[in-house]
Amino acid sequence: MKQWSRERLARAALSHICEPAKPGLARLVEEQGAEQVYQGLRALGDDSAWARRAAALDVSDLMRAAEHCGLRLVVPGDQEWPSRLADLDRLVPVGEMSGSAIALWAKGPARLDELCEDVHRPVAIVGARSSTRYGEAVATELAARLSGEFPVISGGAYGIDIAAHRGALAAGGTTVAVMAGGLDAWYPRGNSAVLDRITRQGLVISELAPGIRPTRAGFLARNRLIAALGVATVVVEAAARSGALNTAHWTTALSRVLAAVPGPVSSALSETPHRLIRDAEAVLVTGADDVRALITPVGEQDELPLVGRARELDDLDPTLLAVREALPARGEATFDEISVASGIGVAACQGALVRLELAGLVSQPGPGRWRLMRPGCATTQ
Amino acid sequence: MKQWSRERLARAALSHICEPAKPGLARLVEEQGAEQVYQGLRALGDDSAWARRAAALDVSDLMRAAEHCGLRLVVPGDQEWPSRLADLDRLVPVGEMSGSAIALWAKGPARLDELCEDVHRPVAIVGARSSTRYGEAVATELAARLSGEFPVISGGAYGIDIAAHRGALAAGGTTVAVMAGGLDAWYPRGNSAVLDRITRQGLVISELAPGIRPTRAGFLARNRLIAALGVATVVVEAAARSGALNTAHWTTALSRVLAAVPGPVSSALSETPHRLIRDAEAVLVTGADDVRALITPVGEQDELPLVGRARELDDLDPTLLAVREALPARGEATFDEISVASGIGVAACQGALVRLELAGLVSQPGPGRWRLMRPGCATTQ
Repeated sequence: MKQWSRERLARAALSHICEPAKPGLARLVEEQGAEQVYQGLRALGDDSAWARRAAALDVSDLMRAAEHCGLRLVVPGDQEWPSRLADLDRLVPVGEMSGSAIALWAKGPARLDELCEDVHRPVAIVGARSSTRYGEAVATELAARLSGEFPVISGGAYGIDIAAHRGALAAGGTTVAVMAGGLDAWYPRGNSAVLDRITRQGLVISELAPGIRPTRAGFLARNRLIAALGVATVVVEAAARSGALNTAHWTTALSRVLAAVPGPVSSALSETPHRLIRDAEAVLVTGADDVRALITPVGEQDELPLVGRARELDDLDPTLLAVREALPARGEATFDEISVASGIGVAACQGALVRLELAGLVSQPGPGRWRLMRPGCATTQ
Repeated sequence: MKQWSRERLARAALSHICEPAKPGLARLVEEQGAEQVYQGLRALGDDSAWARRAAALDVSDLMRAAEHCGLRLVVPGDQEWPSRLADLDRLVPVGEMSGSAIALWAKGPARLDELCEDVHRPVAIVGARSSTRYGEAVATELAARLSGEFPVISGGAYGIDIAAHRGALAAGGTTVAVMAGGLDAWYPRGNSAVLDRITRQGLVISELAPGIRPTRAGFLARNRLIAALGVATVVVEAAARSGALNTAHWTTALSRVLAAVPGPVSSALSETPHRLIRDAEAVLVTGADDVRALITPVGEQDELPLVGRARELDDLDPTLLAVREALPARGEATFDEISVASGIGVAACQGALVRLELAGLVSQPGPGRWRLMRPGCATTQ
């Protein structure tokens, strides 16, 4: 058995003792060190559940069990630790949970730090356990088409989670399953074959030590890791109340991109995606191309029309054309002036200006002031 | 046969002679009077298609044909003329078309002016001719549930148009079919039974005189009337290129509310609704309740939570709660201050403030400045 530093062992112990995402815990460990927090809990006697668990735990047994399962421990300071998780420490609690993970247990050939690098732009795909064939087909295809370029992240549940993993595996892409319990046993057991395959082709991770079974709180805490590890979360199918909605809240709280796939309005599983889109919390996406466009910086997008090319004016819809024509040939115009000159309503005019700016056809030299871009000028982004 | 004023007869004649929505025509008729425009065309000899048609037309025959079909002529100045159409005269051309109608031919017991009154808030439902069962079911249910409260407007085509009319008729509601050809013959003939029923229960109208057959230009011109007569247009199913998209453009150009119903991403007929929603041109609606909420002034909405009631804080999602808690107990905060204090990203924070404002929980005393609303205060709208 390897020699472990006391700090690593203490983090491993805390991942067995403490429920995840308890507000203040991650910060306390950061400030005092895991060893001091762990020894403090042991010294408490049996005053609390954590203290009782700390007293009862044999860390050597835990590390042996983990080694037996083929798990590796990843802690802050390790090269494999995903820096992206630090964003969780800056958030106000969501549902009385907050903070980064104390430690992560991992199994699989993929390196968590590498696939979470900004350049790889991992995308979380989440949704209902009791999904429909429609949702599963969407999740599978989305993951298959994204995972060659962008690592896919999801949970390990039935339904959308496992459909996404299947798609990524089938396409030979990278996929990460974030579990809500220890990695010594799969939950649900029915997904064992797929999860086993992910440990050979991608990565399965958990912030809970082997031996810990998933709880409702564990699932909710896990959702924050899914949201934090990705640059974007795509909700595929989710009923009005669902775990995916919780992941969506974490995504929004983290200022990550939230997207949702619409579906038939006749399906109860379309309720959450549609509500998120309607309330402008999520962007509507219909497939991998839409997701790629969302997470690709504007300057790198293939489909961005070049300024001054004739086809972009031909392609403009009449509203865009009218708004663009309402701008003076030289100098600037205010929003009100453009709206009046074009005869186009306020909301539509605003939307048109944003789209024209994205297309590089107008620019905004100051708040609320707009000017035409000259053909041949660089785009504004 | 009735005695008609020369001006009415001239408008009737022009509705036979001139293609609809020709830019400048409505304004010319407004300025010079229909009689002068009509006689001017007659005096031109056969210099143009309009002149040739003007010379060949026997207006008495036209009026007899109309009377024989049970049609009435409605012109500007008549009590039944819908004032809402005047908005068309203020627009820049869309697809080289513009302007209000010169005259309308109508058949049916409903009064066009009455059902177009602001208080009745007519809603246009448009979509694909080659619709799916899903789209037809959505259109039928939407129209059935809306038409008792809000008159439904659509075209007379197969697919979504006729499904919407069927729904309104089945529910005993009011429905208006706006046709692209003269009302002496139905196009398509397969919809004759439903269109006949609308002439007994609702209203069928056209800006084209009896005897005129629909053309592609006629359909596009007709779309502007559908958009202009409603306070909102709902797109149910439409492929990437479709007439419904044209109606959507007119709706946006008119600053009317544009809404769209999502559907399976696997259906080509979801493309236009999804694109309109994604680009924030249309609001996502999933049924009659969503449409009702969109077109009902905020002060009249049942579902608007009352300020100071406990449940609204309980119901707030964590992001809204965090943003609200980031506001000072007294005084104002700028947008940046709120974003920093809440730890919530810029886009999500902006969205949350708008939703809190709609719920009457915060107010905006000036641009970019926000304050808490006290329980018991009036809502901001």
